[in-house]
Amino acid sequence: MSYGIIIKVLGYLLTIEAAFMVPSLLVALYYNQGDAISFLISIILTGILGFFMIKMSSSKGRIKVKEGLAIVTFGWFLVSFFGSLPFVISGSIPFWVDAFFETVSGLTTTGATLVKDVEALPKGILFWRSFTHWIGGMGILVFTVAFLSMLGIGAFQIFKAESPGPIPDKIAPRIRDTAKILYITYFTITIVQTVLLRLGGMPWFESLVHTFGTVGTGGFSTKNASIGAFNSTYIHMITAIFMVLSGINFALYYSLFKGNRREVLRDEELRLYLGIIASAVILIAFNINKTIYNNMALSFRDAFFQVSSVITTTGYSTVDFDKWPTFSKSILFLLMFIGGCAGSTAGGIKGIRILVLFKLIKREISKILHPRAVIPIKVGGRTLSNETVASIASFFILYIIIFALGTMVISLEGIDLESAASSVAATLGDVGPGFGFVGPTQNYSQFSNWSKLLLSLFMLLGRLELFTIVALCMPKSWKGGD
Amino acid sequence: MSYGIIIKVLGYLLTIEAAFMVPSLLVALYYNQGDAISFLISIILTGILGFFMIKMSSSKGRIKVKEGLAIVTFGWFLVSFFGSLPFVISGSIPFWVDAFFETVSGLTTTGATLVKDVEALPKGILFWRSFTHWIGGMGILVFTVAFLSMLGIGAFQIFKAESPGPIPDKIAPRIRDTAKILYITYFTITIVQTVLLRLGGMPWFESLVHTFGTVGTGGFSTKNASIGAFNSTYIHMITAIFMVLSGINFALYYSLFKGNRREVLRDEELRLYLGIIASAVILIAFNINKTIYNNMALSFRDAFFQVSSVITTTGYSTVDFDKWPTFSKSILFLLMFIGGCAGSTAGGIKGIRILVLFKLIKREISKILHPRAVIPIKVGGRTLSNETVASIASFFILYIIIFALGTMVISLEGIDLESAASSVAATLGDVGPGFGFVGPTQNYSQFSNWSKLLLSLFMLLGRLELFTIVALCMPKSWKGGD
Repeated sequence: MSYGIIIKVLGYLLTIEAAFMVPSLLVALYYNQGDAISFLISIILTGILGFFMIKMSSSKGRIKVKEGLAIVTFGWFLVSFFGSLPFVISGSIPFWVDAFFETVSGLTTTGATLVKDVEALPKGILFWRSFTHWIGGMGILVFTVAFLSMLGIGAFQIFKAESPGPIPDKIAPRIRDTAKILYITYFTITIVQTVLLRLGGMPWFESLVHTFGTVGTGGFSTKNASIGAFNSTYIHMITAIFMVLSGINFALYYSLFKGNRREVLRDEELRLYLGIIASAVILIAFNINKTIYNNMALSFRDAFFQVSSVITTTGYSTVDFDKWPTFSKSILFLLMFIGGCAGSTAGGIKGIRILVLFKLIKREISKILHPRAVIPIKVGGRTLSNETVASIASFFILYIIIFALGTMVISLEGIDLESAASSVAATLGDVGPGFGFVGPTQNYSQFSNWSKLLLSLFMLLGRLELFTIVALCMPKSWKGGD
Repeated sequence: MSYGIIIKVLGYLLTIEAAFMVPSLLVALYYNQGDAISFLISIILTGILGFFMIKMSSSKGRIKVKEGLAIVTFGWFLVSFFGSLPFVISGSIPFWVDAFFETVSGLTTTGATLVKDVEALPKGILFWRSFTHWIGGMGILVFTVAFLSMLGIGAFQIFKAESPGPIPDKIAPRIRDTAKILYITYFTITIVQTVLLRLGGMPWFESLVHTFGTVGTGGFSTKNASIGAFNSTYIHMITAIFMVLSGINFALYYSLFKGNRREVLRDEELRLYLGIIASAVILIAFNINKTIYNNMALSFRDAFFQVSSVITTTGYSTVDFDKWPTFSKSILFLLMFIGGCAGSTAGGIKGIRILVLFKLIKREISKILHPRAVIPIKVGGRTLSNETVASIASFFILYIIIFALGTMVISLEGIDLESAASSVAATLGDVGPGFGFVGPTQNYSQFSNWSKLLLSLFMLLGRLELFTIVALCMPKSWKGGD
């Protein structure tokens, strides 16, 4: 393990984070609610440490697999720790474990909060809280194209395997260029949504903050009642549509921009994603219309919002869906696991993996009928290697195992099984709210410190596609050699 | 599809079933509670139909994969239908859907009941109800060695792959001999347990009936309070120990009998199985001791009984474990999925598959650190083929998908999520009781007819290792050709 290069890269990360705090400082100065000083201190502390880490460490050694794993994992912990400074210093979230949880929740674009009264927080803090979603979402896009490709695992490998036409490394041969294209898309969506929300009568500050939560598929709001506080079908629908858009593979926007509309329409993951959304909306709308609403238009509106919010793992709410009938809740629960598309800011297992797993099962059934047949698994016309399929199956299995064991440990809190299970599913899938004890009108403040830390770990595990952290925990990772 | 041979085999199955009803007729005659006539009618109807099916059908055509699938699936449905006749005719379970559910539950060795007052049933009916467990358990052993090996899937393939020493087809080259060995073991365990229960003061009738429920890992009792009605630690412990023994791969008893003790001790699945039982007992015992019992010995006794009952998918209870703290319940919930060992009468995913899945994940992690390494997955010193591993992974994935979608559909009943999820887990895993609405002091009588049929399907799916039924539902299975 080359520690020098690891420390250097982590130093860069902290310096960048300090720079990212500057807009929040400006917002705090503008609204003058006493939180500016906390940003100033945080920027200085984070920036100085980052600067020294860059200067003091040798840049010898290369970033190989182990170094990559270490950078990704420690990077997230470190950035989360320093990102929590403004919360602690300003007294908005006085306890460190709570502030850490909130920051991890922000950066992983989860949106699980333990702030009881969000509306009491100063504007600078609210801005920073939601800005972490936006930074996190951006980070995930880099992470997707850069680190995961280096590790040869997870989303990018899928991304490559899946892409029917424009393969990312064909879009732009160098990672930097690919990242640039993704960023332009990210910025464009951000600007368009902010303007559209403003046009719906939402103030600029709220428009921007809720856009951060949407494009990052995070879900932090400035209101205790989330988006539901804005009693406007227009605002609900704009948010819902942009949640759906943010859950789509960003490479497809580039294809669309290049005029390859047919390739986008043919994309199997996109079809599955939209198909699941449509089915879930219809099933839930009929279910809640019959049991609660008795108004088809409102049923569809609220079903669409909640389905979009949960499948994209954003976690905004316009109604208390915890009070919906069990059938609707079980669908939402399922969507927490499915998640959005690969190459987006959404969490969860992701559409492309679900697609491959269904094809794997279909093949297994065909093999019963034709035992000697060799049936390749194809996505977008390309055959996936046995390794890729095994890797995707392993991901699913590990996801379920972590969910099951996590629920077991969290249930030590003495809460009911549904609350325990949904709190783990909602953090592991980076969704945010769950059911019961962690329902949309509740928050995570009542958990013990140990559970808060464990749930923070689940958010990171979900965000880092499980294996990076798990692999780093293997004793092998720390031994010498390669 | 060769229909002639299918009808012939199904005819044999019905004739055998008619013969299996004779002991119940004798019990009914002995106790003279008015249920004898129902058995007489059932035996005549079932026997005559079976006889005509054998005589009328041509025996041309060979049993290939599709015919095998059809025989297994239709065989279970048919035998369940005719097995339900005594319940309906005697008026013990007057509605056909209910009687069908109860019979499927018996034959699949699930033990989920919808009889509200078991103690009111006549002895002949009680005998038949539990005898279906014993027949079902025996059927599974044949099924394991015969049909699944023919299909090249599931338990037997695993059984072969896993067995460190005595491979079944080495034990006895012909299926008939293998089956014989398994039967002798099955009979021996049955006799020993019956005698031991009798020695504990349980009447002969109850001893025999509860032994059927134990060795078949079924769980039907003669008492409304299940085994808990017998207030004797000796009886609880004998039952718990025999549940554990019935969840072990029966091939290992043969090895033991042959003196290969070391091979048995080295068996990886057995070690995992016993390890999980020990861990679960310790965790639950400490949890319930702290929260409820405040008596370590009693905590361990009840934890051991309930853990044995759930992991072997038997479903007997001595206490209302639905009232245990969530941590203990979540462990039991997990055990419902794990199940016993392959080659036993237990249901669930089964130890050997869990073992292989853990090795698959371990390999995936190693691959991150050593991307170019080729790491075989070994069980008992033998390398598993990629096909076997993919097949096991597919099984797990399909199991989880059926569980998730099943929970969604069952939740239309309007019950809470925990009840819906545990009713599906408890039927798919052939356990019996779940939590809440289907807890150990409750029963399945309150479900709608559609849900009862769906839950019956889950029991069959679980028992037939999923893929047989699913494959038969493919339109391909019905087309001509091979």
